Order: sequence, then structure tokens, then C-alpha cells
Amino acid sequence: MHPPQAHPPSRRPLPAALTASLQARFGERFSTATAVCEQHGRDESPLPPAPPDAVLYALTSEEVADAVALCRAHRVPVIPYGTGSSLEGHLLAVQGGISIDVSRMNQVLAINAEDLTATVQAGVTRKQLNDALKATGLFFPIDPGADASLGGMAATRASGTNAVRYGTMKENVLGLTVVTADGKIVRTARRVKKSSAGYDLTRLFVGSEGTLGVITEVTVRLYPLPEALSAAVVSFPSLAQAIDAVIRIIQAGVPVARCEYVCDRAIRAINAYSHTSLREASTLFFEFHGSEASVHEQAQTVQEIVREFGGQDFEWAARPEDRTRLWTARHNSYFAGLQMRPGGRAITTDTCVPISRLSEAIGGARRLLDSSSIPSMMVGHVGDGNFHSMLVIDPDDPGQWAEAERLNDEIVHLALSMDGTCTGEHGVGLHKMRFLEQEAGDDALELMRRIKRALDPDDILNPGKIFVL
Amino acid sequence: MHPPQAHPPSRRPLPAALTASLQARFGERFSTATAVCEQHGRDESPLPPAPPDAVLYALTSEEVADAVALCRAHRVPVIPYGTGSSLEGHLLAVQGGISIDVSRMNQVLAINAEDLTATVQAGVTRKQLNDALKATGLFFPIDPGADASLGGMAATRASGTNAVRYGTMKENVLGLTVVTADGKIVRTARRVKKSSAGYDLTRLFVGSEGTLGVITEVTVRLYPLPEALSAAVVSFPSLAQAIDAVIRIIQAGVPVARCEYVCDRAIRAINAYSHTSLREASTLFFEFHGSEASVHEQAQTVQEIVREFGGQDFEWAARPEDRTRLWTARHNSYFAGLQMRPGGRAITTDTCVPISRLSEAIGGARRLLDSSSIPSMMVGHVGDGNFHSMLVIDPDDPGQWAEAERLNDEIVHLALSMDGTCTGEHGVGLHKMRFLEQEAGDDALELMRRIKRALDPDDILNPGKIFVL
Repeated sequence: MHPPQAHPPSRRPLPAALTASLQARFGERFSTATAVCEQHGRDESPLPPAPPDAVLYALTSEEVADAVALCRAHRVPVIPYGTGSSLEGHLLAVQGGISIDVSRMNQVLAINAEDLTATVQAGVTRKQLNDALKATGLFFPIDPGADASLGGMAATRASGTNAVRYGTMKENVLGLTVVTADGKIVRTARRVKKSSAGYDLTRLFVGSEGTLGVITEVTVRLYPLPEALSAAVVSFPSLAQAIDAVIRIIQAGVPVARCEYVCDRAIRAINAYSHTSLREASTLFFEFHGSEASVHEQAQTVQEIVREFGGQDFEWAARPEDRTRLWTARHNSYFAGLQMRPGGRAITTDTCVPISRLSEAIGGARRLLDSSSIPSMMVGHVGDGNFHSMLVIDPDDPGQWAEAERLNDEIVHLALSMDGTCTGEHGVGLHKMRFLEQEAGDDALELMRRIKRALDPDDILNPGKIFVL
Repeated sequence: MHPPQAHPPSRRPLPAALTASLQARFGERFSTATAVCEQHGRDESPLPPAPPDAVLYALTSEEVADAVALCRAHRVPVIPYGTGSSLEGHLLAVQGGISIDVSRMNQVLAINAEDLTATVQAGVTRKQLNDALKATGLFFPIDPGADASLGGMAATRASGTNAVRYGTMKENVLGLTVVTADGKIVRTARRVKKSSAGYDLTRLFVGSEGTLGVITEVTVRLYPLPEALSAAVVSFPSLAQAIDAVIRIIQAGVPVARCEYVCDRAIRAINAYSHTSLREASTLFFEFHGSEASVHEQAQTVQEIVREFGGQDFEWAARPEDRTRLWTARHNSYFAGLQMRPGGRAITTDTCVPISRLSEAIGGARRLLDSSSIPSMMVGHVGDGNFHSMLVIDPDDPGQWAEAERLNDEIVHLALSMDGTCTGEHGVGLHKMRFLEQEAGDDALELMRRIKRALDPDDILNPGKIFVL
């Protein structure tokens, strides 16, 4: 898919009866205003916008259920919308329909500190949840960079910098409330740490990208704030040495809380954007969580390994404000990277490979990027074998689109050849559909299609995403 | 369901054409011998046997695929069989059909030590895998007590004593090879630590109890053997104090590797069966994994908490042989318990509740058990909120069946009233179908049924289990 092509205008106008029903039911929270629709028709992907025909700001599961039931009756698509931070076109209304914006569903419904769980409405963001947890001594670790909604994070099976220690949304969602295609409100699981009671509906909806139901509430696991916490930055003479150090650290079982690779070019972009003065070299960012003794022990083990691979001395960020600055700089690398070409748009890869193949995968990706004149950089949650190449193109230049997509293809194929995946955490959306076909194969895709048809026979739930039905 | 009722003889004889095809394809590995069928028609549950019409000893995924395709053509049920250690009647051929025994599919296909993964055929047991890992410095932690097959453990979403630290099969299966109802061989995921590539087919098959496909290969996560490891036993004046100590330990975030409750009666049974001399009191068994410093620190924190709740001093099992004796005794508690009534059969509950409710749930269960004259005991993976009540009945006494089932019902209802689950790790099988209805509710069950119909339209895969279709 080369985004300069506009999406096919196969959409039909909203049935007047549906518009009337939604207006009657929701009043001003249902909008067909062009500006509102346009805002809900784009995300952080480079894909051209595809606005919905209308937007509903829902407040409760019951409202979502009513809206979905009405849309179902009229065979009109429903696209869930959280914060719009998706990177793969998940929320583009490629077949028109109603965007159900859950951002006002922002109530923290329960904090069960004694059980290390919290239940929130789908529009609550990770930062909002962590603010609400401040008095409890607990935190929610999953951190995809953007301040995404918990509903959106569940829908894309998000993860990020902390996943190497705490897992992804797959491991950290205990249960969901979802609205199904027939407008039923279903709770997928009890609030228990484990269960063998029937099919794992929770995990079926986690990562389903809005195609099987609208997530309206999320119950997540929480963790005690670590007694001690430290962060450090270390630079290496080469990419290969940095990655080989990571492989050794993971194989040694060191429970690092964060282990991030940032390439020399990304460091340059970050320095320019965040006014930092990091050494422009292949760099690892670490964070250690635990007791004082354990953090000390982890850091020592990691330092020994890092030295073996030619790493410089650790630069510590011991104070909370230093750590915040460090991780903010890392999180802003996406926006920093965009500045490599002002006005440009980013095509971002998201491959993940078995850790033993990481050096080949990331080295191969770097060689591909180096073969092109398109500004590029790499960052990665390398402790999990997951990394992102970012290519910043001139969106008005079809030649650059084509070249960036070709490089994207080659980087993905390299990962697939190593038993890797095309997407470690961003999801498939629109942009990776062709990769999923190659990765999963026909028979696995056919199982997915059967599940989709069984749960959404009219194909109204975020249609046109993940796979061609 | 009161097992003294025989299963309805609604089964029809195997079509002669199918028998002929299976004999031609598999020769002596296809058997209709009565003794073989009877052996494959019972498990560790108290349910009356329901033998299949024939047994196939498969060797490869391709053989399983051929057998399933043949059975599908004749609309004959297929029941996967691993080691027969199921506790809920999962493998009883209640509608007749072919038992596909995967115990000879016992090849360890790959140990990717550098990636901390292994891929095995479904018949490999957990002990066999750990033996194969001996030279690598790695281990596979999931330990349901029985030396179950990895395929069976995946199918029931098993866990056990180590899950409090390492998670369940849900967290530790990276991918599966499954044979679907139409005889296709499907790989559910790549060998990567995380992925957002489409629906989570792996987690859909984990816990599906043979009703969606036959698991033929399993890829699991491995862990470095901890540098240090210690185990301890501690007894308490009361059940309540023991459980309150557990709750505090979990809430404090101590990463205990094992945290098991064994009631006074279970200790008595264990002492008699395993010739140990443990104090007959409410007892916790702990194991700590980590670096020397971390194990020391964990043990110290736990000892402080234990003392607060009236616990005795730790009795350490520092030497490997002492630890083995301790955990063997714990694992044999099921067989020890059976000796409370020689010739008896056990009805075992498997409830799991949010940790804050554990004291109420386990105290309530104990009061229910105490109200009955049926010999009983309790053990539990209490760090996860999961515990088992075991009632040993005279299988020839319908009054005892009825009373045990009534107590089972009440214990489950108590757990469900606390947002708990009827099964933490054993699965639904036949015996918990009525509980799953209450736990999941109609709408969630309907989603499960739709998935089942979509993936197995002729209902040939382990029919009659989990829910009424």
C-alpha cells in the first residue's frame, strides 16, 4: 500500500434514520461537524486521513452498546477512538462510519490496592492512571511512549520500554469489558490472577484492534513501586557491540526494568530536540528496579558485561528529575526524529526477533537504511528483541514513499526470515496487512477470519483492518 | 452432575470405513483393544470412565492431521490424550470417538538456549524437558505436580506451585502447532517474546481443552537456573494467620518462587504417606530464587512478616535433597490425601480469588468442610489466591457423592461471590461446566460457543466439554 493513493470512496452516506436516532439518544455528544470528523480520521501514521462520517463521545459501556446496536441495525461501521496515538492507521474510517470516541470515558472505577489491580474506563490514559495511584505506592508499568488510553493499549497489545521486565498488555490485562457487535456488554474474566475457566476471551480481545468489539473497561495488574530505582546511559564504539552486550545481559537473566537501544543518529536528533548533550554513538539506556541491594547487583552485572563489549562507563541518572529528563528524551525520540526533515512524515518499522538474532536483524536493518538517502534512525526495546527503524520522508514525493516502503519491506522480510514478527507492539492496522499475510500464513489467517465472522458477521467493527475478510 | 449416573450411551459404533482407513494408515498404532480403550477413558477425576472406541498413537503433526481429517469426514469425535493426569474428565470419550494419544510424540525438537526457548512435541512431559535442559543452565518452571505432558498443560492452561513467580502456561507458551478440525497444521505464532501481529491464536488454544484443535507442538519460555535457591517450612497457630501472612507477602511484592499453603490435615496425611515429621498445623512452604543476596533478602522479609502473624521459626531445607524431599511430599499430597479413605475417590475444588479475599474464601471453605463427616483437606497455591479443597468419598455411596458435590457447589459459589473463578488451573472439563455457566454468564459463553462453531463446525473436537454447544 502506497499511501499517496487516496482510500477508495466506496463509502455511502450515513442513513438518515441512524443519524436521527444517534442525535436523539446522544444530543450534542454526537457530531457530524467536519472539523471533528477530520480530527478523528488521522493518527500518527503517515497514511492519508480517512475521516468518519460522525463522531460519538460516549460516556459509559451502556452508551457504547446502544450506539453499536444502532449501527449494526444499519450495517454502519464503528471505529473505536482513544487518544489517536496509533501508528498504523488503526482508526482511519476507510469504509466510513461512526468513530466512537472513548476519551471522555476517563473514570478510574476502582483501585484495589490490596489486590494490586485497578479497573478503569477505556479512555483513561496510562499517565492518568499512574497519577491516580500516587498515594498507593503502586504503579502501572506499561509505557508505550505516547500517553495512550488503556483501551487503545489493550486493543493494540501495546508494550514499550518496561515490557522487558513487566511484560506487555497481554500479561497485564486481567479482564476487559467489551461491547460486542450485537450490542451486548460482556465481561471477559474475573478479577483474579489466573483462571482456567474456558476460552481466554481477554487475550482474544487484547490485540484485536477494535475488530471484534469495543473495549469499554480495562482491569490491569499493578506493581509495588520499587524500593530503589536507578537509570544509566552507556555508549559503545559500534552498534554490534551494543547489541551483543544486550544479548548477553538478557541471556544472563538480569531482570532489567528497561533496556533501550538508541542509535547514533537518534542521539543526534534527541540532543537537538531535547537540548541534551549525549555522546553521539550507539547507546543503551538502562533502568534497574528492586531493593537497594538488588539494584546495585543488577547494575554491577550489567556494567561488567558492558565493559566486555567495549562500552564506556555508565553515566548515572540517580535523581528522579535526571531520570525523568532521560526517559522524556528517549520518549520524544519519535518527535525528535521527525525534525530530521521538517514537514516530513515517518514510516516506522516494528520488527521483533528472537534475541539471538537481534544483532543480525538490527545490523541488517542499519545497512538497508544506510543504502538510502532518506533520513533515518533506529531505536529499540532491544531487551525484548524489538526495534524500530524510522524513515522520515517528504510526503509529497511519491519516489520517497516507494523507496521507504521498499526498505520497510526488506527490513520486515529480514525479521520474518529469522522467525521474527512484523510488529512487536504497534499492531497491524492498515499498514502491515500485507506483512501479516506473510507472517501468519493462509491457514492461521483463515482461523482469524473465521473468528471475525463468528463475532462480527456484518463486519461493522473497524472493518478493513488487520486482514482482508 | 453426579457421577454415579453412567454417561448416556448415545454413541454409535465407529464407521467400518473409518476403522479400515485408520488401520491402513497407522497399522498397529491404531487399536480398538478393550484394555487400551479403557485405559484412555479415565483420568484422575472421580468421574466414571468413558472409553473411546479406538486409540491412535500418533507420532507427528502430519499423522494427527491425517487422523483428524479422516474423523472429520465421518463426523467422529477426536479426543487428545497426553498422560491422563487431568482432574476434570477432559479426556473422557462421552460421545465415543478416537483418542489421539500423543505420548509417543516425545521429541524435544529444539532447545534454543541462547533465546531461552524450547520447542517440543506435545507428548514431552515437564520432567523430560527439564532433564533435556540439564546441560544448559536453564529450566522450565511450570509445575502442576503431576508429570503432565506439555500439550496437556497448554490445553488446560496449567500452572502450579511456581506460577506465583513465573506465571502459568498462558504466560509461558510462546507458540503452538495445532491441528485444526479440517486437518490443517497451523503454527499460532513466531518464536518471539512479544508480537502484536493479529489475533492471539496462541492464547486462544491455551486452555481450550482440545475443543478447538489438537496441540501437537509447544514452544515455551525457559529461565536461567537461579544462582541461589532455598526453601523453608513454617507453621502457624491458625489458618487465618497463615493466610494473612501470605496476603501481606504478596502485597509487599516479594518475588517468592513458591508460596504454598498446606492445612493441618493435609500435613497429617503427608506425614503418613511420605514418612515426614512435619508439625501438624497450618503450614506454609516457601521457595526463594535469585542471587545469593536476593534470596537472603527475600527470606528475611518473609520471616519478618511471618513472625508478625504468629508463625514459628523457619525450618530450612537448604540442601537440594532436602528440597526435593519437601516438594515431593507437597506434590504427593493428592495421593496422601486419598489415603484418608483407602479405596476412596477425590473431588477437588480449584477456586481462585483476588488475594485480598483469600482469607475469607479459604476460611469459608474450611468451615464448609468441617460441617461434613467426609474426610477432607486443603492445599493451595496461595500466593496466587488459588487453593484446592479435597473431599475423599466412597465412590459407591451416592449420599457421599451428593454431599461432596453440594460442598463443592458452596465453595465455588463463595469464590464467585468474591469475583473469583471456579478453576484456577485444572480447567473446566466435564465437572465444572455448570460452574462456568455461572462464572462467565450467557453472553461470554455465547462468544465461546460462536468461536467453537466457527473453528469446529461439526463438533468433532473433544465434544461435550467446557460448555453445552
